[in-house]
Amino acid sequence: MSTATPSYDDLTGTWTRLHRLGHLQSIAGWDQASNMPPKGNEARAAAMAEMAALLHRMRTDPKLPDQMARAEQEPLSELQRANLREMHRQWRASNALPEALVQAQQMATSRCEHAWRTQRPANDWAGFVENLRPVLANARQEAELLSQLTGVRKYDAMMDRFEPGMRCEQVDQVFGEVRQWLPGLIRQVTERQAHEEVLQPQGPFPVAQQRALCEAVMKLVGFDFAGGRLDVSTHPFCGGVPEDVRMTTRFREDEFLGSLMGTVHETGHGRYEQNLPRELLGQPVAEARSMALHESQSLGFEMQLGSHPGFIQHLAPLVVQAFGEQPAFAPANLAKLLTRVKPGFIRVDADEVTYPAHIILRYEIEKLLIEGEIEIEDVPALWDARMHELLGLDTRGNFKDGPMQDVHWPEALFGYFPCYSLGAMYAAQWFAAMRRAMPDLDARIVRGELGAVFDWLRENIWSQASRWTTDELARRASGEPLNPAHFKAHLERRYLG
Amino acid sequence: MSTATPSYDDLTGTWTRLHRLGHLQSIAGWDQASNMPPKGNEARAAAMAEMAALLHRMRTDPKLPDQMARAEQEPLSELQRANLREMHRQWRASNALPEALVQAQQMATSRCEHAWRTQRPANDWAGFVENLRPVLANARQEAELLSQLTGVRKYDAMMDRFEPGMRCEQVDQVFGEVRQWLPGLIRQVTERQAHEEVLQPQGPFPVAQQRALCEAVMKLVGFDFAGGRLDVSTHPFCGGVPEDVRMTTRFREDEFLGSLMGTVHETGHGRYEQNLPRELLGQPVAEARSMALHESQSLGFEMQLGSHPGFIQHLAPLVVQAFGEQPAFAPANLAKLLTRVKPGFIRVDADEVTYPAHIILRYEIEKLLIEGEIEIEDVPALWDARMHELLGLDTRGNFKDGPMQDVHWPEALFGYFPCYSLGAMYAAQWFAAMRRAMPDLDARIVRGELGAVFDWLRENIWSQASRWTTDELARRASGEPLNPAHFKAHLERRYLG
Repeated sequence: MSTATPSYDDLTGTWTRLHRLGHLQSIAGWDQASNMPPKGNEARAAAMAEMAALLHRMRTDPKLPDQMARAEQEPLSELQRANLREMHRQWRASNALPEALVQAQQMATSRCEHAWRTQRPANDWAGFVENLRPVLANARQEAELLSQLTGVRKYDAMMDRFEPGMRCEQVDQVFGEVRQWLPGLIRQVTERQAHEEVLQPQGPFPVAQQRALCEAVMKLVGFDFAGGRLDVSTHPFCGGVPEDVRMTTRFREDEFLGSLMGTVHETGHGRYEQNLPRELLGQPVAEARSMALHESQSLGFEMQLGSHPGFIQHLAPLVVQAFGEQPAFAPANLAKLLTRVKPGFIRVDADEVTYPAHIILRYEIEKLLIEGEIEIEDVPALWDARMHELLGLDTRGNFKDGPMQDVHWPEALFGYFPCYSLGAMYAAQWFAAMRRAMPDLDARIVRGELGAVFDWLRENIWSQASRWTTDELARRASGEPLNPAHFKAHLERRYLG
Repeated sequence: MSTATPSYDDLTGTWTRLHRLGHLQSIAGWDQASNMPPKGNEARAAAMAEMAALLHRMRTDPKLPDQMARAEQEPLSELQRANLREMHRQWRASNALPEALVQAQQMATSRCEHAWRTQRPANDWAGFVENLRPVLANARQEAELLSQLTGVRKYDAMMDRFEPGMRCEQVDQVFGEVRQWLPGLIRQVTERQAHEEVLQPQGPFPVAQQRALCEAVMKLVGFDFAGGRLDVSTHPFCGGVPEDVRMTTRFREDEFLGSLMGTVHETGHGRYEQNLPRELLGQPVAEARSMALHESQSLGFEMQLGSHPGFIQHLAPLVVQAFGEQPAFAPANLAKLLTRVKPGFIRVDADEVTYPAHIILRYEIEKLLIEGEIEIEDVPALWDARMHELLGLDTRGNFKDGPMQDVHWPEALFGYFPCYSLGAMYAAQWFAAMRRAMPDLDARIVRGELGAVFDWLRENIWSQASRWTTDELARRASGEPLNPAHFKAHLERRYLG
């Protein structure tokens, strides 16, 4: 078979194989979290490490640089060029780090994460620090190497793994603005809500009914169950592959809203994956653009849409169907429950107004850690100072609800945290763009015509995958690059309007 | 690292990698049958085919013959020699067939099996023949190539894939004997049972209770749920990996004994896998010996133990616990239900007395097919003649309950069927050996001391894995090679005693 683009074709063949083998790795990872019995762990870890090494060898095949160089000279379409650009990005990321460092970090994170599971409930900060130290040391080495390779500063290089093109300069500016108005907004909203009467739902809420409710709401927001599932895991996530999306949630019998809205959140991730351009799957250009964009989908589903008073009118009957009538299930009361603002210690339990405070504080601290300007021992004091300043909370001595609460640092995911708040900002920006395109959007949501939202997202975000840089995608979708003013306007309208 | 056995060590390294990557393939296969939504199928098939090709390349690596030849000269222990022997066997099986034939057969079986799912309920024999023809043609080529390579006759070569060392000569002799006494025994037993009063359990039997019952009985027969699971699939099987055994069953609300005893059957497979020698897992010598030995475990659990009147005394209270009191759940009545003999069309529904008739008929037909002595068009007449002779049933025109009932031929598993009845015979032989070693075995089973059975199986079968040939294993375990007299004695004692 002879084509005009032989090198490009070789490359797409390699990435198709990576996609297929990665499929097995993804399903095994989902299974590990949702099905695997404890004695399977050692063999599973060995199997997945073997596959990881195999995938790494394929991504660092010495033939690739030459193939990519030759493909550059071939007559490629714009889409193929975008694909080649993304191949190059992935190849560079895989080749940047010596295998010894990758392995050392794998060992260090695995040990740190495993110990963290018991150290956190025991509030054992000293023990945690010992395990986190090698993780941070490896991460700093990694940042140094990536920085040398790409010419950006160290924390930028780490953040680039999750949010290509994002730089501290921009994050500092955006978060710096938020810092100005957030504490005041939180104060205003909590004062205003202090006088609200809110009814609490009365449990228990049997797991079978909760599961049925979650599945009904997933259908309401368009999840395709012919191409995915909902299961249970300790830490909810959206995994699997675009062709077979595996979402997980967790249930507790005394409370259902957390699990329900968590499921709506993950469904945003899931629909992004389910609607990536099918004919290109396996190629880098068909992958989700970035983690901030991914979070813009999950937070778009959970916050922009899921807590929208019009949407809640359609959610309430499903809740009643699951658990029977309760005064607390009246739409107006459900809306109050879903927009309750209360500063708290725990990021994953935070409402959308206080959430950015948790992110800003982590961002400021992990940037200093990676850049080598502070050590782990300095974290608790900084944490406490920021929690005071941003949320008015005292965290002294409470490590387990403080810097030990997240799995991100034990897993060396330095640079990930900003994506959550950038995602919330992009989500507000998408909905603002939708309202400009469809001035009756809110009325449509009230009428349950959610297709208006999903069609816009499919056309502007999902189907575009990695064709453009994040900036270009944002411009094409909304007419402007990241603009946090939409997020502020959203919060003010919803919480002070 | 320098050792006295560098080539042997290289080989064990290769097989460890095969084991690890095969782990992902097994889990993905289980997931495909028990979890996967329909739209995931295409991507899953592509992923598993990619992995199959990768594993095949590893098993046919041109370095292997030389490594094996050099390993032969190294100072190996007896166990290592056994491992090398099994490596050689696997290598030969993988290398015997040209990749084009393997791929052609994969395509043909995939098409045939897929069409069979609708052709069987439609009784569409003509359509089925068209799809089975290329499957048989490929299988004959495969048999011819394997026969040339190993010097045994063609059907022997096919059977050797499942039951190493078994030959038509022995099967003919064993099945020939059974043919002599089986029709008479069936007549005697059915006449005797005609006068028995048997109470039928009254449904419905809710799925949740059935599942709880199955899990309780699995625990009773020693399944380790810390290293395995029970799930649901259309066709029950025992899959996964030895470190994480994935068993499946299926439930219908109007009947529970089929699913329950099917689960006991699969648990026999599961415990064999769970108790293979752990320190050698990944090496061929640590794999289950053969399919007849595997079936000897499942049928040992289901028939020898599971339908033992002493065992049923412990089963009955669990049934009552699941569904409440019923006269039909009295141990004596349950025993009658589990030993009811009735000639029927369907192999998988057959009792242990008529079952061998189904196997003998399939064996005789598929041997002629593979040896080229008949064509597919000749099958229905032969089938009908054998069903008449062995079970007194008329099958003319009823293809769906006749030669179209099994998935084995669409999947080209020619040579597998004999393993079922050989397994039933080995199972009887093991229990006879146990009774010689423990004259109070039946009293122990009555007392619920099932450990006596499991300890014997662990010591004599499970822990021995593939260390010995089947013949040698049988001699070591029971003092003699395969001896079908034990099977006959078992049936006579249970059904005429």
